[in-house]
Amino acid sequence: MKINKAVITAAGRNQQTLPLQTLIDSDGTEKSVLKIIVEEALRAGIEEICLVVQAGDEKAYAQVAGEHAGRLHFVQQKKPLGYGHAIYCAKEFIGNDAFLHLVGDHLYVNRSQKGCAQQLVEVATSNSCAVSAVQAIRETLLPFYGAVGGMPVQGKQDLYKIDEVVEKPTPTQAEQHLVVPGLRAGHYLCFFGMHVLTPTVIDILRKFIKKSDEQKIHLSPALAELAKKEQYLALQLHDWRYDVGVKYGLMTAQIALAMNGKDRDEVLATLLELLATRELKVLGR
Amino acid sequence: MKINKAVITAAGRNQQTLPLQTLIDSDGTEKSVLKIIVEEALRAGIEEICLVVQAGDEKAYAQVAGEHAGRLHFVQQKKPLGYGHAIYCAKEFIGNDAFLHLVGDHLYVNRSQKGCAQQLVEVATSNSCAVSAVQAIRETLLPFYGAVGGMPVQGKQDLYKIDEVVEKPTPTQAEQHLVVPGLRAGHYLCFFGMHVLTPTVIDILRKFIKKSDEQKIHLSPALAELAKKEQYLALQLHDWRYDVGVKYGLMTAQIALAMNGKDRDEVLATLLELLATRELKVLGR
Repeated sequence: MKINKAVITAAGRNQQTLPLQTLIDSDGTEKSVLKIIVEEALRAGIEEICLVVQAGDEKAYAQVAGEHAGRLHFVQQKKPLGYGHAIYCAKEFIGNDAFLHLVGDHLYVNRSQKGCAQQLVEVATSNSCAVSAVQAIRETLLPFYGAVGGMPVQGKQDLYKIDEVVEKPTPTQAEQHLVVPGLRAGHYLCFFGMHVLTPTVIDILRKFIKKSDEQKIHLSPALAELAKKEQYLALQLHDWRYDVGVKYGLMTAQIALAMNGKDRDEVLATLLELLATRELKVLGR
Repeated sequence: MKINKAVITAAGRNQQTLPLQTLIDSDGTEKSVLKIIVEEALRAGIEEICLVVQAGDEKAYAQVAGEHAGRLHFVQQKKPLGYGHAIYCAKEFIGNDAFLHLVGDHLYVNRSQKGCAQQLVEVATSNSCAVSAVQAIRETLLPFYGAVGGMPVQGKQDLYKIDEVVEKPTPTQAEQHLVVPGLRAGHYLCFFGMHVLTPTVIDILRKFIKKSDEQKIHLSPALAELAKKEQYLALQLHDWRYDVGVKYGLMTAQIALAMNGKDRDEVLATLLELLATRELKVLGR
């Protein structure tokens, strides 16, 4: 299985301007959020990228993609019919190929030398199947995540065979269906916002959409169905991901990128200076 | 003198996307940089705002101005003929009125209850003359600033009568022309990026432009001329200003806004958590 296509979804309401925001990447250069995400994909060997957008956003996104603009294909999600539907909009771009899927509002900082998407694509390629990146998350945070249940793949660290997928499970659902042997008690494997998916997912989404009657189509039910049809793995990553769409998400991602990159000392000094100045203020000096 | 007009310049090359960036303001709500600047002006009693932009930027700027879009007038700077020329482009909007001038790439955090622009406008109104906000800056930083020379106004704290204006003075120039009695040794009064100007400045700029032969027109020489024609004051502010156009400028401004606002504790906790996580990483744990 060769993976050289990526689909990035960026059509969510209230999230249109996120990919246009500017940050300094770990390499110390100024980039749009979109460009940082695109480069995450390129490091994983991706050659062509389909961006699922709201009508009219194409020009602004192409502008901030810089030298990568030529690799971008745009497809519009004309109605806000959900995350699964957004991916389905890229069906013609996807064709019969497996593809990397990233979301337009998450940034990743890798702890090891390898990029997050790169690790994921390597595992998908060598196993020739769909793989979702996951992280072990405390039970109390389940309301914010899609979670998977399954069993460790013998002899492979951090790799699991997925049997179940549940979006925002209750603690009871999680305890009954999603306990994964080997994880710390009270922890579950939750999606990290990054997947390698097979065209089977598009077939499943098509079926869902046909009988949906314009209801929102989510991704997790399609992935639950995928687990019944094909081998579908989860790769537990020990890296960091940042949702730039939440309050202070951009700031947090920026600091994390800087602390992991070449400007680490400069940014630490800035932070300490800011903290020092404000503390003096609070003390009335 | 009543001041209810403001001119914001945002036509600089490489700075077009700055006003579109999103930050969380001190009040805890998400706003574009442009909206934060506009609100700085509104707090000072401004009613109408002229934005000097590059052609084609109007729509994006109006979108991120939110509920203030109705107060915005746009004027294009068709050629990159400098900062002074950009202000001159607003001449019809300005007419015969004094106006507040802010730049589109600076954010302000006030130490006291009053906004920076508000303090400036109050002083300009009560003295019926042009006033520039200034800060005392160390000699080593003079290459980055426009600086003024003059004398303290008797009986008025932080107020100076400007005699000289020099853009990016050398240390020798500064020592000869810009020493201000009462400042710490080796410190000079430098522009803070915020002025109340009189229509006389437009007349001076017009004269400069006529004989410029398409050379760049800077603001400082026009202000030097203003000091010879009218009473022109400097108000020393003790607040903070952040140039969001420099590297890590957005991050620094964001942290400063947060540390001064209602989300202070939340953001402090985030910062400390990030610092702690990365330090553990560096220690190899």
